[in-house]
Amino acid sequence: MTRPVTRFSTAPLWQMTRQLAAVAGGRAAADLVITDARILSTYTDRISGPKEIWLSGGRIAAVKELGAHRAAPAPNAVYDAKGGILAPGLVDPHIHIESSMITACAYAEGALLNGTTTIFCDSHEIGNVMDVAGVEAMLEDARLAPMSIFLTVPSTVPATSPELETAGGDLTPEKIGALFDAWPEAVALGEKMDFVPVVMGDPRSHAIIAESLKRGRPVSGHVYGREFIPGYAASGVTDTHEAIDRDIANDMADAGIWVFLRGGNPSTPWNSIAEAIGAITKDGASPKRFCVCTDDRDADDLLTFGQDWVVREAIRLGMAPATAWAMGSLHGATRFGMDGDFGALGGGRRADVILLNDDLKVQNTWYGGELMVEGGKITPLLDHCLESRYTYPKAAYQTVKLPAARKLLPELPAGPVTVNAIGIEMPGIALPHRKVPVTPGKDWAETLAAHSLTHVAVIERHGKSDGNIAHGFLHDFTLKAGAVASSVGHDSHNIIVAGLNEADMQLAVAEIEKHQGGIAVVRDGEVKAFVALPVAGLMSDKRVHEVAEETRALKAAWEEAGCAIPYMGFNLIPLSVIPEIRITDKGLVTVPQMAIVPTFEA
Amino acid sequence: MTRPVTRFSTAPLWQMTRQLAAVAGGRAAADLVITDARILSTYTDRISGPKEIWLSGGRIAAVKELGAHRAAPAPNAVYDAKGGILAPGLVDPHIHIESSMITACAYAEGALLNGTTTIFCDSHEIGNVMDVAGVEAMLEDARLAPMSIFLTVPSTVPATSPELETAGGDLTPEKIGALFDAWPEAVALGEKMDFVPVVMGDPRSHAIIAESLKRGRPVSGHVYGREFIPGYAASGVTDTHEAIDRDIANDMADAGIWVFLRGGNPSTPWNSIAEAIGAITKDGASPKRFCVCTDDRDADDLLTFGQDWVVREAIRLGMAPATAWAMGSLHGATRFGMDGDFGALGGGRRADVILLNDDLKVQNTWYGGELMVEGGKITPLLDHCLESRYTYPKAAYQTVKLPAARKLLPELPAGPVTVNAIGIEMPGIALPHRKVPVTPGKDWAETLAAHSLTHVAVIERHGKSDGNIAHGFLHDFTLKAGAVASSVGHDSHNIIVAGLNEADMQLAVAEIEKHQGGIAVVRDGEVKAFVALPVAGLMSDKRVHEVAEETRALKAAWEEAGCAIPYMGFNLIPLSVIPEIRITDKGLVTVPQMAIVPTFEA
Repeated sequence: MTRPVTRFSTAPLWQMTRQLAAVAGGRAAADLVITDARILSTYTDRISGPKEIWLSGGRIAAVKELGAHRAAPAPNAVYDAKGGILAPGLVDPHIHIESSMITACAYAEGALLNGTTTIFCDSHEIGNVMDVAGVEAMLEDARLAPMSIFLTVPSTVPATSPELETAGGDLTPEKIGALFDAWPEAVALGEKMDFVPVVMGDPRSHAIIAESLKRGRPVSGHVYGREFIPGYAASGVTDTHEAIDRDIANDMADAGIWVFLRGGNPSTPWNSIAEAIGAITKDGASPKRFCVCTDDRDADDLLTFGQDWVVREAIRLGMAPATAWAMGSLHGATRFGMDGDFGALGGGRRADVILLNDDLKVQNTWYGGELMVEGGKITPLLDHCLESRYTYPKAAYQTVKLPAARKLLPELPAGPVTVNAIGIEMPGIALPHRKVPVTPGKDWAETLAAHSLTHVAVIERHGKSDGNIAHGFLHDFTLKAGAVASSVGHDSHNIIVAGLNEADMQLAVAEIEKHQGGIAVVRDGEVKAFVALPVAGLMSDKRVHEVAEETRALKAAWEEAGCAIPYMGFNLIPLSVIPEIRITDKGLVTVPQMAIVPTFEA
Repeated sequence: MTRPVTRFSTAPLWQMTRQLAAVAGGRAAADLVITDARILSTYTDRISGPKEIWLSGGRIAAVKELGAHRAAPAPNAVYDAKGGILAPGLVDPHIHIESSMITACAYAEGALLNGTTTIFCDSHEIGNVMDVAGVEAMLEDARLAPMSIFLTVPSTVPATSPELETAGGDLTPEKIGALFDAWPEAVALGEKMDFVPVVMGDPRSHAIIAESLKRGRPVSGHVYGREFIPGYAASGVTDTHEAIDRDIANDMADAGIWVFLRGGNPSTPWNSIAEAIGAITKDGASPKRFCVCTDDRDADDLLTFGQDWVVREAIRLGMAPATAWAMGSLHGATRFGMDGDFGALGGGRRADVILLNDDLKVQNTWYGGELMVEGGKITPLLDHCLESRYTYPKAAYQTVKLPAARKLLPELPAGPVTVNAIGIEMPGIALPHRKVPVTPGKDWAETLAAHSLTHVAVIERHGKSDGNIAHGFLHDFTLKAGAVASSVGHDSHNIIVAGLNEADMQLAVAEIEKHQGGIAVVRDGEVKAFVALPVAGLMSDKRVHEVAEETRALKAAWEEAGCAIPYMGFNLIPLSVIPEIRITDKGLVTVPQMAIVPTFEA
């Protein structure tokens, strides 16, 4: 079989203009003509046809009137689209591959099934674990993937500071500048999550922004709160994906910040498009600087709620179909100055072409002119590409470095105390700080039950501390028995474990250590569900459908265990940039005070 | 007085983000607050307010609610906009400064009066005369101008080939690559005028395109004829300004070519916006990849029919005001990937701010936060800036190198002949090839009069030939007496002279030689009007109003002389890429055959 298809299988345009002009002019044969199709133009937001499209060397030579190829040199192949709609491959302007718990090569399978052929990914999870080496490993992974993957360079690693958490990575301005210079696919700075320091003029934050701007590269953002928008825009940030309502979407857009409307599984807080799109549909903003994006998807949701689903959701919410598709493709490419190659069916562009039915559901995906998905199923060619996925270096498989002796519970207090507890409530992003008066019972089991508390501990896993373990409590987590644990603990990705008894907590942690990463549900000394994540403790090295199946089993066990928030929310508990109280390996952190508070107060 | 204001008076954003964040956050004082204004957002195509805008260091810190500055550190100055509309400075995506017959510094005065603060200029006229040295002199000129001037590198010099005309310049792929590398303001390749060779795959044309594309720079175009659009797009061209009707505008837009709708003096063919805008207003294309532009303006028309006029014309033709302004500003900046600095009133952007009345007529222009135009008049600061204009090098003043003996008329034929004449008819762009049967009279005067002919000659002026002079005839030029001549003779800019007697023709040429450039109207041994163009034979070194006045006088004399087309059309007679027959220093050229035909046939 042929060499696997990658982004590099298609030559750059400057090497191909004569060939493409010859094909477009009818002087040379096209590789492929896809005929009898309506054409969705993301340039003019119109659907027209019937027409046909001529491909050559992995690029689009021209869109022509139906049947025009019969008067030209015979193409190598003709594909009958039978009246379907041809649209450009989707461009997702903001995603984190690690959230899918699969590698970049594996992600491509899910993406191509969704008609997504280009993504801008921010690999700040692996950056937090492995520093530059992790970012570069994922870039190597991306280069072998059968899709176009660009990097928005992780900008906020660690998310806070060494005083508040122990991270595996520390991406300084110098390291970030070097990444830009070494990797042409580093096309922007990734989401500058520390928006409070940014608007307050923090020198390191602005030095990192400067590394991008001085190279002519844009800066992506992450911000909550209308009051921060002017200072954030003034700092040079020009996109965000956090518009949660119309007001902030309007503010962002008018301040010059591209708005990436984030859609996803409606049962998660990632689905904020419904409110925010009102800036267009109700307040009359031009959609020209709005995109749609996915941000985070586990492997299971990736297959169901991809970028194509978000586009269809935008249509359901009132956008014209061609405009919605443009928001999912050309607009993102334009935002990153890459509309010469991506996001539209114009002459000279890459032949990333999607065949859609009338509901805009993906039938076929051609990537660089190669048929990768047909009738909603992967082709033998894509299957072949996915067999030779990138292998991460050995160091990536050795990132869970735990202290030998692990004390997961604090001592039972001698008398009444107040517990600084982490309140658990849906949707599981912001978590309330609850001061719970506790009168100790005869042991922890009785005490937890009497106060709706669950043990939680965070164990430093980068081998950088003297075995840091912090102890705390979740309030109203509603775990019925046993323990849950994860090596995905944003953003430093230390091990987080919660449970009702130490034995099950120890077993969950041991299981993660054994596999060098994973998410576990344990009860009565038995592992009920486990997703192994041996790559940086974040990703499986299996294919998307396998991991999706494991993830579905995990979710079922998680729900059966009674946890009050989904596992993805649980993974966010150590993320000490979201209000009001979190737990890191250094202890309980209150946000936005950024102070460590004790577990017990008198 | 302070140092003159240039583009470089405002620091790059990466050096300013902390300061701007401090001002936006109310921790540091703004330089200037413009208050009580409605804000025109080119991001969302909406006008809202009343609001105010805070400026710092020549950039926009933030747009705020009306009166917000009273709760912040006292700004250095407050300007009351009295309810007017604030909009971003206009961005003209395609112009030739030389057409205004003034230098870049002088052009800035006219542009700022029109609310235009950024232009993308293609200096292919001076490139045709002086090669790289001319392009670089104009870049130096541009750097001293009180506005932002970027270069689209001249791509088609000469317009045809040395067999068909003698040009002063020959911009090879190597020279073009070197210009890109030496000048950061070279942001794109200028209009690739030789669209027939391009679509036919000419190696030199594509090598030039490759120099731009391989540096990640886009390619501007110039094309007539729907049949050429697919091949032109396939060649990597992504804008044109030649859409003359709805059909071709639709074709271009859907092929991925940005459409620059060209407006201007309605008495000229430059005003093609009225038809082409129907692609949006009648055919429903999204305006997101449409701009407006001016292309060419003499100094007189520059003051009346600027980019602001084109925007208002777009409104008259049906566009919403904010969308039309965006087509004249943000869209052009976006097309060149420079929307981080230009075309909108977003945080961090350059403080190029226009105060408009309700008819969108320009009242004030702030450039980089400095007030340059107030109440429709230039401020003392702008006047000061214009006093220290760039001085072109000596060589630029010595470009009209004519043969000492100049024979301007052919011999009178001995008997009946057929003349391959250049038919003159409005609007004066395409000129018909007329085969005129001529029976010679007693002399040329009688012969011309009997056949509605006028002598025309083109004299090589670059000192590159052995005194090439070509003789031909204009048919129906309707010059009543005397002669007209010009050193602006597109694109090689040899001297073109037309007349009814040799003495006046000789005088017109001598006048041009004496001033090393100019346009003359001569009658009965007297110079009736003359615009001296000593810089490369293309430009005056005076200010815009002076040259505008001289140009008005020229136009009056030109009209009085009875010429059937305006002087700008006359200047195009040597442009051997426009159908059907032209005259260069090598003789009569038929287009598109690109063949030289004799003046007289048996």
